[in-house]
Amino acid sequence: MKNLNNIKVLAFDIFGTVVDWHSSIVAELNRMKIQVDANQFALDWRAGYRPAMDKTLTGEMNCVSVDVIHRLILEELLIKYNILHLSEKQKSDLNLIWHRLCPWADTVQGLNKLKDKYIICTLSNGNIRLLVDLAKYSNLPWDYIFSAENFYAYKPSPKTYLGVAELLDVKPNEILMVAAHHSDLAAARSCGLRTAYIERPLELGTTIKNNVSPCIDNDLHASDLLDLVDKLSK
Amino acid sequence: MKNLNNIKVLAFDIFGTVVDWHSSIVAELNRMKIQVDANQFALDWRAGYRPAMDKTLTGEMNCVSVDVIHRLILEELLIKYNILHLSEKQKSDLNLIWHRLCPWADTVQGLNKLKDKYIICTLSNGNIRLLVDLAKYSNLPWDYIFSAENFYAYKPSPKTYLGVAELLDVKPNEILMVAAHHSDLAAARSCGLRTAYIERPLELGTTIKNNVSPCIDNDLHASDLLDLVDKLSK
Repeated sequence: MKNLNNIKVLAFDIFGTVVDWHSSIVAELNRMKIQVDANQFALDWRAGYRPAMDKTLTGEMNCVSVDVIHRLILEELLIKYNILHLSEKQKSDLNLIWHRLCPWADTVQGLNKLKDKYIICTLSNGNIRLLVDLAKYSNLPWDYIFSAENFYAYKPSPKTYLGVAELLDVKPNEILMVAAHHSDLAAARSCGLRTAYIERPLELGTTIKNNVSPCIDNDLHASDLLDLVDKLSK
Repeated sequence: MKNLNNIKVLAFDIFGTVVDWHSSIVAELNRMKIQVDANQFALDWRAGYRPAMDKTLTGEMNCVSVDVIHRLILEELLIKYNILHLSEKQKSDLNLIWHRLCPWADTVQGLNKLKDKYIICTLSNGNIRLLVDLAKYSNLPWDYIFSAENFYAYKPSPKTYLGVAELLDVKPNEILMVAAHHSDLAAARSCGLRTAYIERPLELGTTIKNNVSPCIDNDLHASDLLDLVDKLSK
C-alpha cells in the first residue's frame, strides 16, 4: 500500500461498489411475481446502461438522467422477455428499484467508520434523487452526494473527478476514489486522484465469475469496506 | 396552518435558521483572546455579507464563494478595529469559524425527527465545503446539501429555489422552505414553494431585539424546529 496519509476525501462509486444491484433486482422481480429468468433480466438491465450512457457521451442522446435511461432499457427488456401485462404504475415502480438497492453487508458499518476520519461522498452517474433515496433507504451516512448531475457530465469524464476536488476545496491527490471497477479508477487516476479497488465478486450474481484481481496501478486493494478501514488505519 | 400534506422536501436556510452564527463568532473571538467588542464585530461581519453578495449579483464582483466574501469583510474589519497583529494562519483560522458554527439547541433533534418523514436538505448561499463542514461538526443529518454553488446563483435568485425542485424531482409546491428570514421565504414563495418561518429572537445576540413577528403570507410559523415537527404532524 502506498502512502495515503494526505487523503482527506473518500469518493465512492455506488452501483456494485456500495450497493448490490443484482440481488436487489432479482428480489424485486420475484416479489412482483414476474415470471422471468430474474438473474439474466438483472444482468441485461445493467448491461444496457453502458451503451445508453455512451450514446449520451457521444451526443446521440440528450443528456438524460439515469432514471430515464433505466426506463428506456426496461421497456426494451419487457418486450424481449415478452412481459406485456404490467401497468404503467407497475413499470414505474419496478424502475424505481434502482432507488431501493440494498447495501453490501459491510457497507453501512464501513462508511460510518470511514466518516470519522474522512469526508465521505458519492461520485456516481446516478441522478441526485436516486442517490438521495438510496441513502435514505439504507442510512448511508454521506457527507456529500456528488452525481453526474452536479457536473453536467458522466464518469469517466474528468469533469466529474476534478469537480469533486473543486467543490470540496481539496487537491485531486487528496481524494481517494473507491470503486469495484478498474475502469472508473483508471479515469480517476488520470485526473490525479488516488485509487482504492474493492472486491465485489458477487456483483454479477452467482452465475458469472467476476474477476476481482488486483491492478498494480491502484494505491490500495481491499476485500470490502471494513478491510478498507483496516488498511487505511495502518 | 394551511394544508401541507403534499410536502415531500424541507429545504432549510442555514445561517441564523439552523446555526447560531452570532454566539459562535463571539465565542471564537474570546477563545482567541482578541481584544474587541466581540458582539459588534460579529454583527459587522455578518452585516458586510449582504452588500458583498449584492455586488456579486449585480456583476461588480465575480461570483465568488462565501469563504472568500467572509475573508474580504474580515480584512476590512481587522483594519477598522485596529487588530493588526494576527498572522496569516490566525486570520485563515478565524475565517473558518463560519465552518464551525454551533447549531441552536433544538436543531439536531428537530432535523432527525423531520428526516423520518421528509427529505431534508439545505438551501444556503454558503459554499459546499462550508456546509459539509458545518454538518460534520454538529452531525446535521442532511439528506442533501444544496448550495449556491450548485446553481451558479445566490438566493434570492429563482434558480436556487427551482433548482432544488428540479434536482429532487418534485414540484415546487412539494417543497417547504424553512427560514428565519421573511425575505428568503418571500422569494421562495414567488417560485411556488411553501414556506415556514422559524423564530430566532437571538440571531443577532442579546443587544438587538430581533423582530420575529409572524407574516401572514407564510404557510406556517414555528418557535423552533421542534415546534415545526409538532405543527407538521397535526
